[in-house]
Amino acid sequence: MAKIMTIKKPLGTANDYRQSLRDMKTAIWAFGEKITNVPDHPLFIPHVNAVAKTYEVNNPATSHLTGKTINRFNHIHQSVDDLVKKVKFLRTINQLTACCIQRCAGQDALNATYVVTYEIDQKYGTNYHERFKKFMTYLQEYNLVTIGAMTDVKGDRSKKPNQQADPDLFVHVVEERKDGVVVRGAKAHLTGVSGAHQVIVFMREDSKDYSIVFSCPVNTPGITYIFGRQSNDTRKLEKGDIDKGNAEFACVGGECVAIFDNVFIPWEDVFMYKEYDFAGMFVEAFASAHRQNYGACKGGIADVLLGATYGIIKANGLTNASHIRDKVADMINMTETLYAGSLACSYEGHKTPSGAFVADTMLANITKHNTTKFVYELNRLSHDICGGLLATLPSEADLRHPEIGPKLEKALAGAAGITAEEKMRLLRLVDNISGGTACVEAMHGAGPPQSQRIMMLRDAKLEGKLKLAEKLAGIKKDKK
Amino acid sequence: MAKIMTIKKPLGTANDYRQSLRDMKTAIWAFGEKITNVPDHPLFIPHVNAVAKTYEVNNPATSHLTGKTINRFNHIHQSVDDLVKKVKFLRTINQLTACCIQRCAGQDALNATYVVTYEIDQKYGTNYHERFKKFMTYLQEYNLVTIGAMTDVKGDRSKKPNQQADPDLFVHVVEERKDGVVVRGAKAHLTGVSGAHQVIVFMREDSKDYSIVFSCPVNTPGITYIFGRQSNDTRKLEKGDIDKGNAEFACVGGECVAIFDNVFIPWEDVFMYKEYDFAGMFVEAFASAHRQNYGACKGGIADVLLGATYGIIKANGLTNASHIRDKVADMINMTETLYAGSLACSYEGHKTPSGAFVADTMLANITKHNTTKFVYELNRLSHDICGGLLATLPSEADLRHPEIGPKLEKALAGAAGITAEEKMRLLRLVDNISGGTACVEAMHGAGPPQSQRIMMLRDAKLEGKLKLAEKLAGIKKDKK
Amino acid sequence: MAKIMTIKKPLGTANDYRQSLRDMKTAIWAFGEKITNVPDHPLFIPHVNAVAKTYEVNNPATSHLTGKTINRFNHIHQSVDDLVKKVKFLRTINQLTACCIQRCAGQDALNATYVVTYEIDQKYGTNYHERFKKFMTYLQEYNLVTIGAMTDVKGDRSKKPNQQADPDLFVHVVEERKDGVVVRGAKAHLTGVSGAHQVIVFMREDSKDYSIVFSCPVNTPGITYIFGRQSNDTRKLEKGDIDKGNAEFACVGGECVAIFDNVFIPWEDVFMYKEYDFAGMFVEAFASAHRQNYGACKGGIADVLLGATYGIIKANGLTNASHIRDKVADMINMTETLYAGSLACSYEGHKTPSGAFVADTMLANITKHNTTKFVYELNRLSHDICGGLLATLPSEADLRHPEIGPKLEKALAGAAGITAEEKMRLLRLVDNISGGTACVEAMHGAGPPQSQRIMMLRDAKLEGKLKLAEKLAGIKKDKK
Amino acid sequence: MAKIMTIKKPLGTANDYRQSLRDMKTAIWAFGEKITNVPDHPLFIPHVNAVAKTYEVNNPATSHLTGKTINRFNHIHQSVDDLVKKVKFLRTINQLTACCIQRCAGQDALNATYVVTYEIDQKYGTNYHERFKKFMTYLQEYNLVTIGAMTDVKGDRSKKPNQQADPDLFVHVVEERKDGVVVRGAKAHLTGVSGAHQVIVFMREDSKDYSIVFSCPVNTPGITYIFGRQSNDTRKLEKGDIDKGNAEFACVGGECVAIFDNVFIPWEDVFMYKEYDFAGMFVEAFASAHRQNYGACKGGIADVLLGATYGIIKANGLTNASHIRDKVADMINMTETLYAGSLACSYEGHKTPSGAFVADTMLANITKHNTTKFVYELNRLSHDICGGLLATLPSEADLRHPEIGPKLEKALAGAAGITAEEKMRLLRLVDNISGGTACVEAMHGAGPPQSQRIMMLRDAKLEGKLKLAEKLAGIKKDKK
Repeated sequence: MAKIMTIKKPLGTANDYRQSLRDMKTAIWAFGEKITNVPDHPLFIPHVNAVAKTYEVNNPATSHLTGKTINRFNHIHQSVDDLVKKVKFLRTINQLTACCIQRCAGQDALNATYVVTYEIDQKYGTNYHERFKKFMTYLQEYNLVTIGAMTDVKGDRSKKPNQQADPDLFVHVVEERKDGVVVRGAKAHLTGVSGAHQVIVFMREDSKDYSIVFSCPVNTPGITYIFGRQSNDTRKLEKGDIDKGNAEFACVGGECVAIFDNVFIPWEDVFMYKEYDFAGMFVEAFASAHRQNYGACKGGIADVLLGATYGIIKANGLTNASHIRDKVADMINMTETLYAGSLACSYEGHKTPSGAFVADTMLANITKHNTTKFVYELNRLSHDICGGLLATLPSEADLRHPEIGPKLEKALAGAAGITAEEKMRLLRLVDNISGGTACVEAMHGAGPPQSQRIMMLRDAKLEGKLKLAEKLAGIKKDKK
Repeated sequence: MAKIMTIKKPLGTANDYRQSLRDMKTAIWAFGEKITNVPDHPLFIPHVNAVAKTYEVNNPATSHLTGKTINRFNHIHQSVDDLVKKVKFLRTINQLTACCIQRCAGQDALNATYVVTYEIDQKYGTNYHERFKKFMTYLQEYNLVTIGAMTDVKGDRSKKPNQQADPDLFVHVVEERKDGVVVRGAKAHLTGVSGAHQVIVFMREDSKDYSIVFSCPVNTPGITYIFGRQSNDTRKLEKGDIDKGNAEFACVGGECVAIFDNVFIPWEDVFMYKEYDFAGMFVEAFASAHRQNYGACKGGIADVLLGATYGIIKANGLTNASHIRDKVADMINMTETLYAGSLACSYEGHKTPSGAFVADTMLANITKHNTTKFVYELNRLSHDICGGLLATLPSEADLRHPEIGPKLEKALAGAAGITAEEKMRLLRLVDNISGGTACVEAMHGAGPPQSQRIMMLRDAKLEGKLKLAEKLAGIKKDKK
Repeated sequence: MAKIMTIKKPLGTANDYRQSLRDMKTAIWAFGEKITNVPDHPLFIPHVNAVAKTYEVNNPATSHLTGKTINRFNHIHQSVDDLVKKVKFLRTINQLTACCIQRCAGQDALNATYVVTYEIDQKYGTNYHERFKKFMTYLQEYNLVTIGAMTDVKGDRSKKPNQQADPDLFVHVVEERKDGVVVRGAKAHLTGVSGAHQVIVFMREDSKDYSIVFSCPVNTPGITYIFGRQSNDTRKLEKGDIDKGNAEFACVGGECVAIFDNVFIPWEDVFMYKEYDFAGMFVEAFASAHRQNYGACKGGIADVLLGATYGIIKANGLTNASHIRDKVADMINMTETLYAGSLACSYEGHKTPSGAFVADTMLANITKHNTTKFVYELNRLSHDICGGLLATLPSEADLRHPEIGPKLEKALAGAAGITAEEKMRLLRLVDNISGGTACVEAMHGAGPPQSQRIMMLRDAKLEGKLKLAEKLAGIKKDKK
Repeated sequence: MAKIMTIKKPLGTANDYRQSLRDMKTAIWAFGEKITNVPDHPLFIPHVNAVAKTYEVNNPATSHLTGKTINRFNHIHQSVDDLVKKVKFLRTINQLTACCIQRCAGQDALNATYVVTYEIDQKYGTNYHERFKKFMTYLQEYNLVTIGAMTDVKGDRSKKPNQQADPDLFVHVVEERKDGVVVRGAKAHLTGVSGAHQVIVFMREDSKDYSIVFSCPVNTPGITYIFGRQSNDTRKLEKGDIDKGNAEFACVGGECVAIFDNVFIPWEDVFMYKEYDFAGMFVEAFASAHRQNYGACKGGIADVLLGATYGIIKANGLTNASHIRDKVADMINMTETLYAGSLACSYEGHKTPSGAFVADTMLANITKHNTTKFVYELNRLSHDICGGLLATLPSEADLRHPEIGPKLEKALAGAAGITAEEKMRLLRLVDNISGGTACVEAMHGAGPPQSQRIMMLRDAKLEGKLKLAEKLAGIKKDKK
């Protein structure tokens, strides 16, 4: 298969990893510029740092292909225990980064491909599975990072790929050659291009022309990556680290639009072609594997959100305020319910004909589905607890300024000796994780919710309502 | 009272208004710099634009003090109709700005002061009410913008002002002079300093030393303003207008920390001093008046959010997708429930002894309280509908670049001839209103919620569950 | 029109009203029996009591048809003030009954018919409106109770009326005569038959054959009423009043299936026939008028639920427990939000071409829609607060038994001298209003929610999570 | 220990079990009567049937005490696999009964006692653990049903046991004898007395006088049981089985107040006495074990609710209605999230010093906590889908009546040949499970929620809102 020629030996350390990215010289467009020193550019460093963490924190597995010790992110799950270890590690590592580590989608795509290529071969007598095992062996040996390219840009979603005004709104084959195929089209939402070596491309649609699965190095000629903007993205380019929120990492993975402009893919890197009856199985195998993770990685991030929120509670002197504790209990409840989903679908995993293990589909789906509400709720509760300062906090430059810095230090000092800087750091971390703060005004403007609740309780005339109830319940109070 | 000497005639137009700000030369610190050309600085222009809108859109009232036509934002409500007009106008003007217009908190503080000074005079024989009427007449005549300074920085919230380690964590009087008082301390969350002429300062606490209400021009010597950071604040400094989201306005008002460093206030601008038994009434009168608004202003912004979201539905070709329509119905339900609260508390308003009308306290409180959940829910639903592109969209600079711009235009083209640029503009507007997008990953990563729901329905084995029910219900199917 | 011959003079008092029902001898089937002494049968007395309350509590309006003082429930709204008075009275009277008073649907149907007949006449030159005004004059003069028959039994809901296997699944005309029409079919959910004089029948469907609106006395030959079972319905037949929950009233209106078996309707009682383009307008006019009410009547019932719940809080000695107070605040918030909807849609009502006033459609719809969630939430919170005893309370017969009664009195005694009987009465009232208690086990089995929250807070290791956050926020604790 | 003399051999079958109850002659008061033929009385048969199911469905474990095959409900968990088997079986058996099987609380109390007696002995050198093992061996050999008595009646909850006006509001020792102790007091919420052989009594409070754990046969002299009323309890006494909802079983376990009037307990049945520092551990061990179950048993019942709801969807011809499918997806999501909690806390269980395995505390707590919301939400959604007929359905007696029965059969016929009787049976089952239907009026009165949503969408003027958004986003439409 298409090896990455600049990587000549297995990547042992985070430094090896960073150097491998430098050597690949993958170009990413951002803000109208073509950036070629991605791993050393401040816009991308926080994203690369999160991936590098997967090289730093010990997470080994034993390859069933070679028997060697490998990084678990390149492992094909051989047991329920593997599935459980995956999600437990995801919670742990996300606690350390509070940032998507960008390596699970690749692992999930690889496991899906492993499972489905076996099935295709069984039905059609093809040889995709062996071909893929070679690819896996290579990834495992060199400890490479693979990402997935799943979602086409789609255009009019009420139409199928071949009904679109422009056929390139879905990636598709435009030429078949003796040695491979040529593909065109555009994909959205590629997470982790800045830190990846390989990309695996899935076509979701069940029409023959649009059915292909392949891999290629991310720096393959003909692919243009354009980086998506993120909330507060340019704070990564600012001096200082307080306003970044997360001093070392980004808050999410960082996504690109990828445009495939007549990209050549040799046959050895093609793992499905025209067997469109398996397109759905690919998508589902990937989706279940990927949805398995969300209660764990978001649970890990929620742990950090909870920790930072708790720090603000302490800084405000409110550790014993019962309405605050009640909201913290709700945050815990959601965090652990998310995690319970990831655990349950892993423990209830099963073996596929390929020998690989996959999570329980139903439980994986409810796990992901719960994140789509709970993460927003967690943010809302954290905003409620943290108070309006979360959205009105001055900049680090103000804090550092000789004239107004001392004024801010005095004005923003917290309880129990917690300094203004510490409060700022925690609040910025909450801001970073919770994805922005404009709606804090709806929360805290005109007073926080608790202030309204106190007024409601005072004005509700509960004794009068009790009298109404007593009359209807046949309680005669005059006898007393 | 302390007039603003640089304003020599009534402000009739938005231009007059902007010029008046230039003349005042109020300084605001931001990013470690002291900015003195506030109304012409790109960081503040979007905020000033929103206030300027209140000079452009017709919103007159008749002063009960002078009988003259005045701007309604400087009006003391003389009827239920005035209360209703206030909230209806708020919805309308927020539909035009999708940004806090920063003038209602001042109006609410003025109305509260009007109501409470009357009561203090009745009890203590003081002369605050007449003094305040003079101030109001001045504001009305010159059409000035007043803001409120309500929230002290507080430090340890489990302690009262006089128990704090530092007495300056609450604004308080440090010296009494023949001609006035000297105040010290810090306030947080001053909305709208960049566009204001006057500030009215409330002390919330019910201890004698900390009980004072006064007004002063915002550029009074001794006050230092430090601007709070907001999500994506520096996009206001970038070229182009797409990435700003809201091309002309900010998304919220813009808040400052204000540090009062021995500021002198003449007696004629003091509207309560030491009558601490009225401190609670001030706060409550202000709070009810201000909470009255939230269903209307947030309702107006929600209208824009809904409109932008609907634009994306069209661009995706999904106007007939029933699960999408269902979410839109939920958005409408919340928007109109918010608004119903503002209307109800206004219509149920009543006259105070001062003659001014105030909203119903209970209903005003539930109105504001509902925004603290519904606004977050509205954002969540919009994120759900808009799809992952909301959080992975490239920059305007990329769209404008001669090499990759055309690629993006092609890749991001929408249904029904909606262009990539239009989609980008609408998505950025959603991003701007909904306060950031980092948690979109929790929504759309591994597929949007609907994709999980389809899987759940498929895997739920509903026919089998029906059999369980039939057995328990005593339904015998074998007879068929 | 078809007058009710047994009613010879206006009904002035509740006694007159009860006697009028006796005289009509309307038959209702229940439990396989044909009951003809409806107003004196224990199954129906609690329902009739609630309607009788509308004769007892003063609620007058001035007829625009005759200028006379009439019961407001027979009034055609002539102003916004009428709309507001309607909902305010609904809240008040439901506070007194905690039971549907069964007279608003009739009023709403009458108002809708008034509005739409005017429009039909305008378009088709028919004479429905005058005909209907005569009917209204009669109702007003004699102070009669009208109910609505709206919902057909429908069969297969994916099919239209004329596609059904059985044409009688929707009420329709089977014969046209010189003097009137003959109708057949079945309607579900007729609220308040047991206390009604007249019924007004709407056809919802927009096909010519199925388009008719008419009225008739409830005891018109050919109509069979079959009473629906309700939760704990037979407790109305038991001795004692504690276990009934609501000692005097039912909890809901009481619904019948009504089967029309070739019922003759004279032309003078027909208010639409074949003008099927107005069928939708009838439904909508009725629906908006009826949805207007729900925040008020359910708000009134919620007041009683809140009062009873508060009584239990006192009986448990928990008035100061903050987690309890927090739930009470949520109950208040929902109750008042419901009510705010009813107020807002009333105040925002407008005049129709007929001269009658109607509520704002959008706001009326959100009002009703909110009840479909909030009422369930209110019940849930009440169950949470009341504790498991709500669902495990022994019977009144046990309390009254000489041997075990004293044991129960001792065991169930409350705080502050509140007796076991008082507790039982309040809990049974909660049970009655909240519609049953089987799911209390899910609430309180294995301990109430608060007991789990305490454990979660204890086990969440918040200090450890704070350390994770501090590291990411760049806070160095070792320096301390 | 105190053996039950009437049970002379192991209970192998459900018949053996029923006979053993007859022989015990335990008396339960209900409706003011002392019932002594409990297992043959129609009020209790449905409850006993559910317990009997645990003798019918195969659920074996291997005793670690004797090596013999025993009923799993009398097993002390020896592995994670035991914990998982427990919850999986609970889901399965509750799918068969839709009714609490009343045997898990006993198992959980036994496991807790096993774990804690070991710890007490370690600390104090007592011999409780061996004593308890003998008791367990007896239960296992004879396959007896044990229930728990946990919750004291408590009186004023703001006060501790020894602060209460009446010391008997908590069970406590009133006399110490050579051969045992005498206890007095009252307990609430004893689930399953009607089907139990043994009861195990816990004292929750951490004061010495009130610290005791003991077991006794349920028919021990001196204990008075008074049965709690349940929603629709007397339907169990009616003819026919449709209106019961669940033809064979009750909907919940059936709870008693138990009054201990100087009950003698021999030392051999006492498993803690005065070691009050372990009272908390008993409660917590029991609570975690019991909370572990709730996602499984309620999940099983939710399966039946979902099945019955799906049956009504079919009867209404609405299987393809997308808003219905959307609500079903929500029901599935909650059901499986509940179950995921039970699975996760079981799989994450751990070994205690006693050798017994216990579930993870945090995850068990969130599991139970989720049921306190989700069960109510499931009911609400089912009510939404089932329509108003759920609460207005006539009685079985009406259906069986020769005159009106055929009318009902015709009027209530469903789609696809589903008969009126089948619809009634399914609706009554939903009614039975969802705990009553009075609040259905809030759901379906004035039309179901979907009817309001349609109106909202129609009236929301989305195109106008889009124009507002386009203006703010800088989209110029005139150029087109």
